[in-house]
Amino acid sequence: MIEKPGITVKKAENFSEWYSQVCLEQGAHLADIRYGVQGFIVIRPYGFHILRKIYELFEEAVEADCHEPMLFPSVIPEENLQKEKEHAGFVPEVFWITEAGSTKLERRIALRPTGETAIYPLYSLWLRSYKDLPLKHYQSRITVFRNEMTTRPFLRGREFSFFETHDAFQTHDEAIIQIKTDLTIMKDVIENKLMIPFYFFKRPQWDRFKGADDTYVSDTLLPDGKRLQISSTHDLGTRFAHAYDIKFKDTDSEEKYVYQTCFGPGIVRIIAALISIHGDDTGLVLPSIVAPITVVIVPILFTDKPEKNKLVTDFCKKLEKKIKEFGYTVRFDDTEQSPGFKFNQGELVGIPLRLEVGPKEVDSNTVTLVRRTARLKTKVELTKLADELRNQLTLLDGEIKAKATAYFKDNTKNAAVMEDLVSVIENHRGFVKVPFCSVTIEGEKCADEIKKLTTAIVCGTSYGNDEKVPRGTKCIACGKGAKHIVYVAKTY
Amino acid sequence: MIEKPGITVKKAENFSEWYSQVCLEQGAHLADIRYGVQGFIVIRPYGFHILRKIYELFEEAVEADCHEPMLFPSVIPEENLQKEKEHAGFVPEVFWITEAGSTKLERRIALRPTGETAIYPLYSLWLRSYKDLPLKHYQSRITVFRNEMTTRPFLRGREFSFFETHDAFQTHDEAIIQIKTDLTIMKDVIENKLMIPFYFFKRPQWDRFKGADDTYVSDTLLPDGKRLQISSTHDLGTRFAHAYDIKFKDTDSEEKYVYQTCFGPGIVRIIAALISIHGDDTGLVLPSIVAPITVVIVPILFTDKPEKNKLVTDFCKKLEKKIKEFGYTVRFDDTEQSPGFKFNQGELVGIPLRLEVGPKEVDSNTVTLVRRTARLKTKVELTKLADELRNQLTLLDGEIKAKATAYFKDNTKNAAVMEDLVSVIENHRGFVKVPFCSVTIEGEKCADEIKKLTTAIVCGTSYGNDEKVPRGTKCIACGKGAKHIVYVAKTY
Repeated sequence: MIEKPGITVKKAENFSEWYSQVCLEQGAHLADIRYGVQGFIVIRPYGFHILRKIYELFEEAVEADCHEPMLFPSVIPEENLQKEKEHAGFVPEVFWITEAGSTKLERRIALRPTGETAIYPLYSLWLRSYKDLPLKHYQSRITVFRNEMTTRPFLRGREFSFFETHDAFQTHDEAIIQIKTDLTIMKDVIENKLMIPFYFFKRPQWDRFKGADDTYVSDTLLPDGKRLQISSTHDLGTRFAHAYDIKFKDTDSEEKYVYQTCFGPGIVRIIAALISIHGDDTGLVLPSIVAPITVVIVPILFTDKPEKNKLVTDFCKKLEKKIKEFGYTVRFDDTEQSPGFKFNQGELVGIPLRLEVGPKEVDSNTVTLVRRTARLKTKVELTKLADELRNQLTLLDGEIKAKATAYFKDNTKNAAVMEDLVSVIENHRGFVKVPFCSVTIEGEKCADEIKKLTTAIVCGTSYGNDEKVPRGTKCIACGKGAKHIVYVAKTY
Repeated sequence: MIEKPGITVKKAENFSEWYSQVCLEQGAHLADIRYGVQGFIVIRPYGFHILRKIYELFEEAVEADCHEPMLFPSVIPEENLQKEKEHAGFVPEVFWITEAGSTKLERRIALRPTGETAIYPLYSLWLRSYKDLPLKHYQSRITVFRNEMTTRPFLRGREFSFFETHDAFQTHDEAIIQIKTDLTIMKDVIENKLMIPFYFFKRPQWDRFKGADDTYVSDTLLPDGKRLQISSTHDLGTRFAHAYDIKFKDTDSEEKYVYQTCFGPGIVRIIAALISIHGDDTGLVLPSIVAPITVVIVPILFTDKPEKNKLVTDFCKKLEKKIKEFGYTVRFDDTEQSPGFKFNQGELVGIPLRLEVGPKEVDSNTVTLVRRTARLKTKVELTKLADELRNQLTLLDGEIKAKATAYFKDNTKNAAVMEDLVSVIENHRGFVKVPFCSVTIEGEKCADEIKKLTTAIVCGTSYGNDEKVPRGTKCIACGKGAKHIVYVAKTY
């Protein structure tokens, strides 16, 4: 139990320590890392409310896009795990169950690192005809297990919260349309609701998901200048269909393999992005849609005025009831702490709006409102409270978005020659757009060269936003003709 | 893929086969048992909608009772699993993770069989003062793992969907109040919303949860006459508090151990009870609150009247839109199957209401409505549709409840002497109330005697409904003075 909560370091000076403090006991109690097994964390109620809201946003979005929910086991039979040869590259990260009680299992079973190899053998049983297509299913609120070497709350864990759609189509064109829909879903949830800016990249061929033809991702930017992948959609082509024998009888009566895509927003990494990008030196800053508590009411009491105090407390209780009726979550902080302590506490955990109520407010039938972002005091007449709360939340969300977008834009630079790239990566944070020869496997050695000189990697090409390369432009690494603009960044 | 879906056996004649057919491909596609690892099943979309609704009902209920959601890892360190000596009795059922990739773990880790030993070490860190109490947290939509020998969809699995509250109190009185609240929650969700009748028993001492002072349960009755436990609340006293050092500084500044309770409605067993108790020879019957689809619209088309068919289809589409606006989930079944096939399909999966629309309905601006339970046809004018749908759902729920309650009551008998008990258990299904000497550990040999003669077990005493034993009544087994009425039944 922390005696005096609060963040003791500046985000810009020591991001890593700031991040830990905000997540753990010093800060917002989002998680607890004292569970006793490395990389397995406890998500505490305040963190869980945020997690659940993010899940709900994606559940709503994919169901509006005609996906049906389902639930698969957490374990995978070993023979299924390895059927798609490239995908079997996951095996070194897999946890194995080998014993039950005091007896050894005849066949060890894997804890799922991701859902494909669990789900697709059943798709092979479920699909018969083109009438069964498209098949669009998803799993939410599950966890997956990977034996990661380094772990950090929400950024990398050995068990983490997961969400995955798994779709099967008659044609590859439909698969491509689905990838674009997944991008739209990310824009809507991540950019418009959670105010997290991101680029949607097509990854270069050497950085595909194991078993995919192509991988499309959302990459955002953390305050330390490293990019963080927060979603992926894999164009699986017919690779898994071949491995798991997923066929259908088409309209022409021919048996054909389905085309598959799968989409996974990185639920916990989105939480990491929310915390890191929006937070400030005082603590969490949360967009209104995801804040577990929208309004905190702090009474201003005076030890020498007990009769006034009673009026203030009664006023606060009425206010609490009113705000609940407006549909907001509200906390009336009637603990014994000082008002200053309560102000700090509310800001530490990112409550969007604070209402201060003292004798003056009671006398004038007003409240003093303070928004988490701008932190200026506004007097609000009680009769105008509903409108003003709505208005203030819009202002808050706007301020959060503007700050995040400015940081994201300011930290996307250009470089045409390697010398510039090296210096930009050294002196700045973020993405650097550079001309590049090829995103097929031939380009890998140029990407390796960039990595050697800068420690940064080639994230990919911007998808759905074709960036033209002027004729005669040269690849930043090999000097041959450049065919693409690629984004380079350090990475998590 | 089943060519001709439908249940081929009668529930009363072969309950076990009927149950499998309703759950699997022949029936409502609730689950798939072809996953390839015994006891690990796939919950398909139709089953998932039911599962999710049940979760939502309990989440709503416990949050209204001030519980906060949280999320713990699926794994438990071995040393924590065994701290409470009696609870360590779970160990023979535990699955162990011993390897990651190709290396052996230094310390094997358990997959949780239930949450206590995962959660309570953290409660010891979180609790400091009486001000932190009561602490009321819960986990929902998680799974637990037990190496059960026999498995059946929803009834017994090796991984199954789980829900658990974990509460800590200053006093035992508060713990007892919580147990009564848990009973109220069960009454509200299970009896009033899902129409499943149950008894709330205090288990005899020899049948407590491993590590509890007392165990309280909800037992319902399946059509084969066996009782099924569908919830438990454990009065843990201070046993786990001692094992995990969960203390708080009380108002008198003394350090004290907390009193704990935990409540777990058996989510998947509730699904098993729903299916078994309400279903009939045609298939699933679902109370309105839990039905994934409330209304199915079936067009009656005629091959020789294409122009009429167009009118019928348009009418159906308008109807579908209207019913969605009323807030119901609706399926317009415009597949190529015959109306008869569609009627059967809707009844097989337990859709509460069917609307039939043919040329006659179009001409008269009506629909023909058929309720899943009574299966009588009613003409409804379109202008009265909203009211009539509501009315019909109320009738449906009432019929479901009446049937379930009648079966439950009819199958609770009395017996005063062992001969009668043996004959009642042999010739009837369900519960038998008998006079009994003691529910402390001394009574166990009488329970063993009953089990030997009848294969049935002593379920416990009715809680919150004190059943008096007339003076001079003798224990049905040992003939000594009876202190309790206990309920005896065969069990799952």
